[in-house]
Amino acid sequence: MTVIGLGQMGAALAGAFLDAGHPTTVFNRTPEKAEPLVARGAVRAATVAEAVAASGLVVVCVLDYPAVRDLLGPVAGALRGRTLVNLTSGSPEQAREEAAWAAGHGAGYLDGAVMTTPPGVGDSESMILYSGGPELLAGHRAALGVLGDPVDLGADAGLASLYDSGLLGLMWSVFGGWLHGTALTGADGVPAKEFTAVSVRWLRTVSWFLSTYADQIDAGEYPGDDATIDVQVATVGHLLHAGEARGIDGRLPRLHLELMKEAVAAGHGGDSYARVIDSFRKARPSEGSGS
Amino acid sequence: MTVIGLGQMGAALAGAFLDAGHPTTVFNRTPEKAEPLVARGAVRAATVAEAVAASGLVVVCVLDYPAVRDLLGPVAGALRGRTLVNLTSGSPEQAREEAAWAAGHGAGYLDGAVMTTPPGVGDSESMILYSGGPELLAGHRAALGVLGDPVDLGADAGLASLYDSGLLGLMWSVFGGWLHGTALTGADGVPAKEFTAVSVRWLRTVSWFLSTYADQIDAGEYPGDDATIDVQVATVGHLLHAGEARGIDGRLPRLHLELMKEAVAAGHGGDSYARVIDSFRKARPSEGSGS
Ligand SMILES: NC(=O)c1ccc[n+]([C@@H]2O[C@H](COP(=O)([O-])OP(=O)(O)OC[C@H]3O[C@@H](n4cnc5c(N)ncnc54)[C@H](OP(=O)(O)O)[C@@H]3O)[C@@H](O)[C@H]2O)c1
Ligand SMILES: NC(=O)c1ccc[n+]([C@@H]2O[C@H](COP(=O)([O-])OP(=O)(O)OC[C@H]3O[C@@H](n4cnc5c(N)ncnc54)[C@H](OP(=O)(O)O)[C@@H]3O)[C@@H](O)[C@H]2O)c1
Repeated sequence: MTVIGLGQMGAALAGAFLDAGHPTTVFNRTPEKAEPLVARGAVRAATVAEAVAASGLVVVCVLDYPAVRDLLGPVAGALRGRTLVNLTSGSPEQAREEAAWAAGHGAGYLDGAVMTTPPGVGDSESMILYSGGPELLAGHRAALGVLGDPVDLGADAGLASLYDSGLLGLMWSVFGGWLHGTALTGADGVPAKEFTAVSVRWLRTVSWFLSTYADQIDAGEYPGDDATIDVQVATVGHLLHAGEARGIDGRLPRLHLELMKEAVAAGHGGDSYARVIDSFRKARPSEGSGS
Repeated sequence: MTVIGLGQMGAALAGAFLDAGHPTTVFNRTPEKAEPLVARGAVRAATVAEAVAASGLVVVCVLDYPAVRDLLGPVAGALRGRTLVNLTSGSPEQAREEAAWAAGHGAGYLDGAVMTTPPGVGDSESMILYSGGPELLAGHRAALGVLGDPVDLGADAGLASLYDSGLLGLMWSVFGGWLHGTALTGADGVPAKEFTAVSVRWLRTVSWFLSTYADQIDAGEYPGDDATIDVQVATVGHLLHAGEARGIDGRLPRLHLELMKEAVAAGHGGDSYARVIDSFRKARPSEGSGS
């Protein structure tokens, strides 16, 4: 294998290949970063061209897509017949462009997203998302499997990045809701560790709700059998009041209430929470152009 | 056992006792709701007094705390020497008052929160949170265990309600982040079921981050070893842009970015995400009095 880019993540990827006994060639713009990997048995390439020439499978993981192009643009011809696996974070549009660029140079292309931090690389519980080449992934699954569990998202090269963004959004939401609850219970003396142990169990229950709701979204029907949005609106009150009584910031629960109330105003108060997807699907006129 | 209140939840609780073979007496303000349970072997009490007299363990699950007091106030004397388990949702303050009221009448009191919907009652994966009487819970653990896994939160009767609010806030945050991601990936043709399967796996990874962060919060130190807030701020950009390009509402990711930026502005950009708890701990002056 070849790994280009030896920042925190690239170094972890190269380390996982080495741990699995794969002959591994490495390259980094700042060459010193290769040293610990060379000590573990990696071959240091003196140039990008040498790095690409060393292996049929070339993994690149640098800051962003422009950095990928800076590195690989000058050696594009050398990629012909090889497989480029780009684990750099970016937008779906960038990934689709990169796939077209690689195809134009006769290279196979897989776009990927590493869904863990560097210490989680090499753990089979960690997901690495791939898109853009189901057959390429099938062919390299054994090698790529040492980095983490490969999840195939299909032929559209943009999907790994799009899932990545969506999943990070989910992560920040989990962090936000959990930090809010930790602050709330902490105000009455509960250690974070104790609230978190219960939160982690609760996330398993919530995950089970998600699967039910996903089917509703795909079917476009939102039966509120067990818990309606109306009932949730009533329950948010307890959270808002408990927070106010303790001086806890209420922006996050107030936004959830605002979203729920939009569903109620649209006549969907008797539906399940999954109906709230309507609020996300249509950006309000005041938005969309901003940021 | 006695179960008072046979709405959706009370009926599920009584049903779980019956399924486990416990002799069960039931009461509901609107008596017809007892019928399906009587058909399954429950004894219908004609009055609340009769219901209380029937068992040493009296479970009540009605709309709210005022409804509990409406029902039990007139028969308070009959509670002496019995254990009242209140699974009605409310505020920590209401729970603490109810505990004092029960103690004043010589009754044991456990406040509880059912962390599932009625179909999840009776499943050992479902948590039922209890607070206000660790010894009472220990004494009744076998009986209460048929409703779901009893989780003891200690002697403060208010904690089951406080955890309940915090955990529901976490649930709405998960729902929001997941619905946003489902709308985002859905815009490029991904079925909800597919994004959700990956989301559910991802929640396991995120849960693992929470445990690390909980220790940081308890220690008051937030080392940004693997992922700093600065890095997350850069990454939110991908999510916001991908959302804007697809007409997806950005209120939720924008709020997360706002919270992150507060941490950066306070000089904590190099810390882990757990540092964002500072933003929740101090309500801003413009808030707290509202709603
Ligand atoms: N760290 C994580 O937890 C994590 C998780 C998932 C995904 N990722 C993604 O993985 C990628 C790498 O992240 P990282 O944590 O390894 O970052 P990092 O430690 O900051 O490393 C950045 C890497 O990019 C290289 N680079 C930057 N600009 C370059 C340019 N113009 N030309 C050539 N090389 C350039 C750097 O080379 P020098 O050493 O010469 O500066 C270094 O190898 C990013 O896209 C990140 O979003 C990271
Ligand atoms: N359903 C859930 O998913 C769920 C989950 C967790 C917690 N909970 C909590 O469980 C409790 C009950 O919820 P539920 O879903 O069973 O609600 P529900 O189906 O609406 O039933 C409400 C119950 O409260 C009784 N009630 C209301 N006001 C009363 C009063 N003034 N005097 C006497 N009885 C009164 C009703 O009696 P009538 O039949 O005579 O109206 C009925 O038994 C609530 O606190 C809820 O927050 C529910």
